[in-house]
Amino acid sequence: MAKKGNLLTVRKDIRVVDATIRDGGLCNNFRFDDKFVKDLYNANVKAGVDYMEFGYKASKEIFDVNDFGKWKFCDDSDIRKIVGDNKTDLKIAVMADVGRTDFKKDILPKKESPIDIIRIATYLNSIPAAVEMIEDCAKKGYETSINIMAVSKANTEDLKEALDILGESPVNVFYIVDSYGALYPEQSRKLADLYCEKADVYKKSVGIHAHNNQQLAFANTIEAMTHGASYLDATVDGMGRGAGNCSLELLLGFLKNPKYKVEPIVKIIEEHTHRFKEQGIKWGYDIPYMLTGQYNTHPRPAISFSNDDRTDYSKFAIELYDIINS
Amino acid sequence: MAKKGNLLTVRKDIRVVDATIRDGGLCNNFRFDDKFVKDLYNANVKAGVDYMEFGYKASKEIFDVNDFGKWKFCDDSDIRKIVGDNKTDLKIAVMADVGRTDFKKDILPKKESPIDIIRIATYLNSIPAAVEMIEDCAKKGYETSINIMAVSKANTEDLKEALDILGESPVNVFYIVDSYGALYPEQSRKLADLYCEKADVYKKSVGIHAHNNQQLAFANTIEAMTHGASYLDATVDGMGRGAGNCSLELLLGFLKNPKYKVEPIVKIIEEHTHRFKEQGIKWGYDIPYMLTGQYNTHPRPAISFSNDDRTDYSKFAIELYDIINS
Repeated sequence: MAKKGNLLTVRKDIRVVDATIRDGGLCNNFRFDDKFVKDLYNANVKAGVDYMEFGYKASKEIFDVNDFGKWKFCDDSDIRKIVGDNKTDLKIAVMADVGRTDFKKDILPKKESPIDIIRIATYLNSIPAAVEMIEDCAKKGYETSINIMAVSKANTEDLKEALDILGESPVNVFYIVDSYGALYPEQSRKLADLYCEKADVYKKSVGIHAHNNQQLAFANTIEAMTHGASYLDATVDGMGRGAGNCSLELLLGFLKNPKYKVEPIVKIIEEHTHRFKEQGIKWGYDIPYMLTGQYNTHPRPAISFSNDDRTDYSKFAIELYDIINS
Repeated sequence: MAKKGNLLTVRKDIRVVDATIRDGGLCNNFRFDDKFVKDLYNANVKAGVDYMEFGYKASKEIFDVNDFGKWKFCDDSDIRKIVGDNKTDLKIAVMADVGRTDFKKDILPKKESPIDIIRIATYLNSIPAAVEMIEDCAKKGYETSINIMAVSKANTEDLKEALDILGESPVNVFYIVDSYGALYPEQSRKLADLYCEKADVYKKSVGIHAHNNQQLAFANTIEAMTHGASYLDATVDGMGRGAGNCSLELLLGFLKNPKYKVEPIVKIIEEHTHRFKEQGIKWGYDIPYMLTGQYNTHPRPAISFSNDDRTDYSKFAIELYDIINS
């Protein structure tokens, strides 16, 4: 199913996935007001975006609903308040973390739900649990993707084995997830080749979700695309955990299909996301995230540094070295 | 001379060029105090940087010395105040624009000067004037590079012809200069291939100077490198005109040669460049620069927008469309 493109042609298999509410929600505990979510939904429809991710289907047994905004849980009724019957070409996505979702209870049969795709996030060590979720969601009528996180740490042989297991499942999309923002374009291309090789065998699609720790999220996304990935995650203004993601406005400006428009997203930046930053919500490239990316490690220490309003980067560099080598 | 590398090996032909004072000087009219320039010089020495560009050798007939800081003119005596006899491995660079430099008068014989390399900046239409400068500088004993600006607008056949003319000159390095920040990694690789093909014939090296309008400056730099470019321009914190440049801290963190260290540059960011931003000096990725990059056009309208402290991006998008199509 994978196809390589070039800089002039349109690839009909491309799917642009706006993950702003979901990954951006990690910056403000999912406390977006309905006006923003509605404006973003309308902008995505106008911009030709193919999927909009509304947040997580998190377990209310594990997480206290008072600690988060509603998009941590994505009740179908809350999505309906934004999209009504969603009589548009934009499909609705939610993410479900393995082990943190009451999927049997909280994910309703597709015919009762506004949701189109369940994106199942897993680490390499919980693939069997992920397969159980995939099978449940597929049986309920959903499209599914499997988002294998922290792929920059994965052993290639383990990854191949995981993709073989997943290949036998009804999942539709294999996702490359560069959680640490550690991949270089050369590695993104190689991973896309590896994923696409397996995807071709099992008739799946391939996606990529990149982080911007080294200012490579956009580059890694389009390079993986050229090597066959077709589901491309991005967020408005790059809003997402830590250094953030591939910017939707960059991706839409790059794609040659005339259905994609950058202007509606520029308006969202002007009216909303730049104000979020003024209000103190933090994301985007900064030195501590660059360092965790260079070290190929979780951005946790950098997020703490940022939350503490520290600016002593040199000291952080020393601390990080100690954390990694301890 | 061009060699391709991979993610594990060291390439001995790599030369990291810090262009902070020169390209960053375009953000503050070259008004850097000596403390900063001296700290940066010391940091570059510690970081293993190969060349440090101090600014332009601009004509004092054309430009009023009262309108700019001294690094617009780079008197040899001013450089000496920073570097003394420069008993280090760091070489000293200056840039000279074709038609804007009194090179015969202002560029002294190498043996009287602290400068090692003269980087000659030209557009495709002034190659013969560039060759005259190259010959003069080479005769005086300098290494030279030719920095062909706005390459994203160049016709490939014209470019090949220019490189053939330059190949016959004593210039040492052919530079790819993405003035508009319009190149995608795929194009950077192709340009590096084209430049390296010519460079191999004439025994030259190839360099790249990228701009960050589409958050691709670092990606384009390392991709061109993998395809044979060896002189790699970068600036601390990406400081440079408009959207800025490839960040030196990203590049140093990527290169595998253990002589390169990122920490001294992190310290300069902490102590200097982040304060420049607080003081109101502007550079870096923003929506208007993204749009001029996507349109493959000069960042001039975006710089005006930024200088006017405007934030109405949607209106700018419409204005830019009109400018380009008028």
